[in-house]
This record gives sequence, C-alpha cells and structure tokens, in this order.
Amino acid sequence: MSINQSITPITLEEKDNLIIGGCDLVDLAKQYGTPLYVIDEQTLRGICREYKKVFANYKNIKMMYASKALCTSAIVKILAEEGFGFDTVSGGEIYTVYKAGVNMSDVLFNGNNKSKKEIELALDCKVGRFSVDNFYEAELLNDIASKKGLTADILLRITPGIECHTHNYIQTGQIDSKFGFDLTQIDMIADLVINKYKSLKLRGLHAHIGSQIFESRSYYDEVGILVKEFARIREKFNINLDEINIGGGLGVKYTENDNPPSVETLAEAVTRALEENSVQPNTIYIEPGRSIISTSGVTLYTVGSSKQVPGGRKYVAIDGGMADNPRPSMYQAEYTAKVANKIHYNKTEKVTLAGRYCESGDILIKEIELPPLDPGDIICVFNTGAYNYSMASNYNRVEKPAMVLVNNSLSDIIVYRETLDNLVSQDNIPDRLKKDD
Amino acid sequence: MSINQSITPITLEEKDNLIIGGCDLVDLAKQYGTPLYVIDEQTLRGICREYKKVFANYKNIKMMYASKALCTSAIVKILAEEGFGFDTVSGGEIYTVYKAGVNMSDVLFNGNNKSKKEIELALDCKVGRFSVDNFYEAELLNDIASKKGLTADILLRITPGIECHTHNYIQTGQIDSKFGFDLTQIDMIADLVINKYKSLKLRGLHAHIGSQIFESRSYYDEVGILVKEFARIREKFNINLDEINIGGGLGVKYTENDNPPSVETLAEAVTRALEENSVQPNTIYIEPGRSIISTSGVTLYTVGSSKQVPGGRKYVAIDGGMADNPRPSMYQAEYTAKVANKIHYNKTEKVTLAGRYCESGDILIKEIELPPLDPGDIICVFNTGAYNYSMASNYNRVEKPAMVLVNNSLSDIIVYRETLDNLVSQDNIPDRLKKDD
Repeated sequence: MSINQSITPITLEEKDNLIIGGCDLVDLAKQYGTPLYVIDEQTLRGICREYKKVFANYKNIKMMYASKALCTSAIVKILAEEGFGFDTVSGGEIYTVYKAGVNMSDVLFNGNNKSKKEIELALDCKVGRFSVDNFYEAELLNDIASKKGLTADILLRITPGIECHTHNYIQTGQIDSKFGFDLTQIDMIADLVINKYKSLKLRGLHAHIGSQIFESRSYYDEVGILVKEFARIREKFNINLDEINIGGGLGVKYTENDNPPSVETLAEAVTRALEENSVQPNTIYIEPGRSIISTSGVTLYTVGSSKQVPGGRKYVAIDGGMADNPRPSMYQAEYTAKVANKIHYNKTEKVTLAGRYCESGDILIKEIELPPLDPGDIICVFNTGAYNYSMASNYNRVEKPAMVLVNNSLSDIIVYRETLDNLVSQDNIPDRLKKDD
Repeated sequence: MSINQSITPITLEEKDNLIIGGCDLVDLAKQYGTPLYVIDEQTLRGICREYKKVFANYKNIKMMYASKALCTSAIVKILAEEGFGFDTVSGGEIYTVYKAGVNMSDVLFNGNNKSKKEIELALDCKVGRFSVDNFYEAELLNDIASKKGLTADILLRITPGIECHTHNYIQTGQIDSKFGFDLTQIDMIADLVINKYKSLKLRGLHAHIGSQIFESRSYYDEVGILVKEFARIREKFNINLDEINIGGGLGVKYTENDNPPSVETLAEAVTRALEENSVQPNTIYIEPGRSIISTSGVTLYTVGSSKQVPGGRKYVAIDGGMADNPRPSMYQAEYTAKVANKIHYNKTEKVTLAGRYCESGDILIKEIELPPLDPGDIICVFNTGAYNYSMASNYNRVEKPAMVLVNNSLSDIIVYRETLDNLVSQDNIPDRLKKDD
C-alpha cells in the first residue's frame, strides 16, 4: 500500500493512548497545548522515498514539492534532504525555501499572476525555472530579466483541456480555467518567446490538472497531450526543448470512502504515456504536494463543551475548527478522527464535532462514531498535513496553533504557537485617535 | 437611506479617480501598495450614530460591536469613542479591546467553547458579562470565578428556534445549532445558576439568530421569545433579571440584489416586540458587527495578467484574492467593484476577476461589467470591511495586506502590511535537522 492510501501516519500505534512517531499524543497535547499540528517525520520521508523509488525507472524525473500544501522552514529542510526541489507560488514561498538554504536551481516559480516584486525576488534568488502562465507575464518577465542582464529559463503553462473529477475549486486542467495558455495559444506564445523575448529561454511545457485526483487515467491523458505538444513545438520551431512538468494533484485518503491510486499506479500511467511517444523530454518534473505531506499530519484538539439538542444531534465542541482547518467549510471536506486517550473503548456514540469559532458553519466532522466524550479528551484528526496550517487564518482573533515534528519518540517545535501579542503586533493606532488617552 | 443599505462608503466621490474620505484611491494604492484594505472613518462613525439615534427611544439599549467582523486596535478605539461596547468571542479579541483601553465593563464574552485560559483572562480583565452557552461552561466558569473569589455576571444564551433565510453557515438561531441552550433546557440551567453556582449571577438572556439577515420580522419573533422567557424565568424563580441581549446579524448591501432592512426598520421591529410585553428588561444589548463595519471598507487591488479563453470567459487577475477575502469561496458571496482610475469610461466588457492564489476556486467576482482593463488599473471592491481581514489567511505564503483609515483627505495605517520576515517568524528548524548545514 502506498502511503497516500493510508488514512493515518505509518508510525501510528495503539497502546494505552494513540502513539505517533513514538510519541504519546496525550503527552504531546499536555506539553505543547492544543490545537496542535503534529507531523510524523517517518511518514513524510517514507512517501518521498516511495515517489523516488517508483519513478526511478524514468531517469530524469525531478520531484518538486508543491510548497503551497505546507511551507514551513523545517518541512522545506526535510524535503530538501530527501532530494526534492520546490514548486513555489509566491514571494513568501521563495523566501522560505531560500532562507532554509535550498539550492535555488531546484526551485520552480508557478502562478497565474506573479507580481513584479515577486519576479524580481525570484530572479535575484536565481530560481531555476519560471512557469510562464500568460502573455502579460512573458512580457513582464522578459523586461525585468533584461534590465537585470539575466536570462530566465521558462516552461509554458498550458491548459490541456482535461476534466478530472474533483472539487470544482481545485480542478485546474479544464479549458475554462484562469491558468495557462489554451492549446490554440501555444504557438503564438512560443513564437514570441523564441523570436522576440530575448531574455527568456524556452525549456519546455507545464500543465497541472487539479488536486485530490483519484483517476490515474487523467495523468495518462495529460502527459500524452504534453509530450505531443512538446514534440510538435520542437519540430515546428526547430528548437531543442528538453523538459515537461506534469504538475501534481495525486489524491489522499481522508476517509474510508476515498480510494486514491497508489504512487506506483500514477508512475505507470505517466510512464506509459511517455513511452507511447517517440520524442521524449530529458527531464520530467512532477509536483506532488498534498500526497507528500497530508498523511504525515494530524491535528490534536481538546474536547470542551457539548450540547445535546433535544431529540436531535449531539454537538461536542473542540478548541479549534475552521480557522486552523478551513477545508470542511471551504470544500465540504470530510475527515477521520479518533480519541487519543480512549483507544480501547468498545462503546461509541454518534456525535458532531463542532469547532470553537462563532459560526454555525464551523463544524469539523458531521456525525462520527466515537467513544462517549468528556471534557479534556484529546481528539486526533487524521490527514491534516496539507492545506490546514497553510490555509489557517486568525478568524475570531485566535492564535494560530503550534506544529511539532515527531520521530523516534522525540518531538520538536517546528512552528511556534502564536501569542496574544502576535495578534496585535501589526496594529497601529494613529496619533489623531489617541487624543482621548 | 440607512448606511447598511448603501453598497459604497458615504464619502465616495467620482472625480478623475474614485475618492473615499477625500483620498484618491489611486494615490492610496501608490503610497501603500496593494492589496490594500481601506476604512472610511465617516461611514463607520455614521452608522454608529445612526444605530444610536434610531434606538434612542428605548433608553437602555447598549450597542455592543461584534468584534469578530473586524477587530483591530484602531477600529476598537473608534467604536469606543462612539460609545459602543464590545461583543468578544476569544481571548484575542478581549486582549485587543483591553490593550486599546476600553472600559472592560462594556465588554461581553460570547462563544460556544470558551477555554479555561480565555475565561481566566476575561475574569482578570473584568469583562462585564459572560454569555454562558452550555452546561459545561456554567460549571467551568463558576469553578474558575470561585477560585478567584469573583462573581461573574452572566446571560444565558438560548436557541430561540428561529429559522432565518441566510447562508447555512451563518444561521444560528435554529433548533439544530451548536450554540446555546434549547428552550427546554433553560429552566434546568437557570435553576443551577440560581441555586448551585454561587459565583455566577444571572442577569438575563441572550440569543443570536444569524448573520446577513434581510428580514426584520426575524428580530420581532426573536425578541418576542426572549422577553417571554425573560418574564417567565423572573416569575418562576422569583428573581430580578434585568437584561436581554438580542444579538446582531443585520444584513448589508453587497450588490444591487441585496435588500437589507434599514437600521430604523430593525429598531421598529425590536421596539414593537418589546412593547407588546408587559415585563420589560432594563437593558437591551444589541450586537451589530457586519452592518457597522462592512460598508466603510473597500479593498484596492492592482490588475495584472489576463486570459481570454478562446470562445469563453475573459479572466483578469488581481494581486489578491481568497486569502484576503475568503467570502466568495467560503460562502459564494458576491461583490460589487469599480475601476478607481477608469470612472468616466462608457465602454465596458464582461470579465471574471480572478485572484492570484493557485487554486481555480480563487475567483473574486464571476462576470462583472467593467471598463476594458489594463495591467496597473486599480480595482476597488466595495463592502469588504467585515469578514475580510478578520478571516484572512496566509494561503500560498502571501503576506496579509495593510489597512488604512481615511478621513478628511488624510490616510493613516491602522494595520501594517506583513513582510516576508513575518511569514517565517514563527518557524523553527530543530537542531537535529541542521546537521547538514
């Protein structure tokens, strides 16, 4: 089984309490407080190695972690150790990987609306590749690179017209997309890059079909389109393209209803599509994000109040919710949870896990069977490594949680918990409002 | 017309460019950068005064601003100057109003799962009222107050069973709600508070029926239930209750399709419900949030790239999106926008304003008629004062925008723009990961 096909981290043990990475989750909650993001280092390194192993047959595959899933300095450090490069989508992500000491030639800069400032930062940091999304960006990047006396190595992001079955918000390969060049626009932009924009060097093509994808066939189709276009442009413009970037998007298993393909199945689909074409790129970039980091992450919450609606639902409230995990309210996402300190209970009851935020929509899990809950119980929600901290807000003026890395019974803080002072640190009261003090 | 019935701030002028608070929005964008939240002080003070005026007939109405709509130190300062108290829902909001110098007896603490730490902070700060949401909280608050030798003045939050037509996520008064005591549970909790929890003093009842409400009838119904229960409990337990809190939720006008009632209509509905009852509370709390702050706020964005899907939609990308305004993706919320530097254009075209975040769901406004857009144009999105900054995230590792307050042609920063260093400031790389450096 592939790690992305597991709901829980691979080091999960059920002793008196739930254990991850050799650390008792109840102890972690006590030591660091809750809500607490926990990342299991072995699960994270495990899936990285799995990706590298199954794609090893195809020599020049380069793994570029999609930082937007979770981008913190320590996570970047681990990914770099595992030989991953980075797919970045903002100045902030570029800055984070740069400060963590990453070799910047292993960094790609993606995005549909890169700002002048971000492009300048990316050029100054010597980011390896720009994935150029649109005509405006090509001109802007060429201008800035030219002024700096630099050449930017670019891929062209194309919209392959693939419809895959995932949430509308995270489906990106369809024709009606804000991202990339339509297939009918590729020749025009290739011509501009090759013949006009002297500070851009065209290295290849990029596509990304979406996120939380369960059909390996979508990748087969996408790669087929990418390599056909790759071969066509090489021939038509008589240039030596050598790279394609197939994007990311492999799904993970949030609940028993999810059946993502294994990394191996993904690799087979990609390899088959590549082998069916005579012209082959020297380098294939792949940008997994969710499937790399999601399974390694869990979130710990403490149970507080509860409410039995007479003749209705039982709500049990935890000390976090939609600000630390916006996915249930944003995408109607479903999660699996256990009670870290009540592993060996046979009795269960159906409850709705409600968040602490002042909003009815702040429901973490609607109807889940759990042992009868009491205040102080520690809830462990699985598969929260991706798009939880990275999308976290300070809604209701609540501090963002801490994150710890666990391995071999050790735990280390990798993101400090925000404090009350952090919450007011950007505030300013103009002098003219201070007159009454 | 009530200010909450206006899409735009009341100081809006159309000269060469759009002007708010006497400040040219194009100049503001240049001076402070974009995305930029702008708050018009006159609109904010105007709606505060309107609330106070229309409720003036009812002597002891107390306005408690629902801080969760937007809670920053300067906003708190202005609201306090206007004579508002504060409805807070977290330690962070309590800390913010406390640090801004607010008289803490004018502060209510609401929420369905207040933590021990937050309750301690609230007691230490001498917060005026606790709205007790559930049985667990009553016991917890009593314990903590008792240990501190304090008495907590409380209201009981009840679920009145009112269905109002708004987004499911923000409808809170219905029976199946995580909030408050069911009507069948009130006597039990009242009995506990009156006869058992010696460190709690029952002052009255609280309800809140939802947010972005367009039907004043819902308030009439709610207040009717509140005062009936108020009278019933006074009589049954022979105690001197003196307060009700009717919550907030009055809607605002995001687009021409929205028709929120005026503040006056709200006041009439509330007053009528009160007058129909013989027993009347001495103090009525009302907790407007969105209707106080939303209209005074606009967000400025700069246009960047664009993409014409052949035979399809035209996407125009701005330099912000779902991280600074999650409402379109979270609630399918709609907004109105103008181009600050293209006021006198007659020609328009239909475009989709896309955000800069790497997600297809990051669409700010789907299909809006605007003058033909060019890179560098300044888009002004109206009615973003509420639930924009307060729900903002750092998704894609992007810095949260700055916020400026405008009035009489002056502009002052009230929230500083985050920097790249802010983004990594909570990060830690454990020593054992540094071995390769």
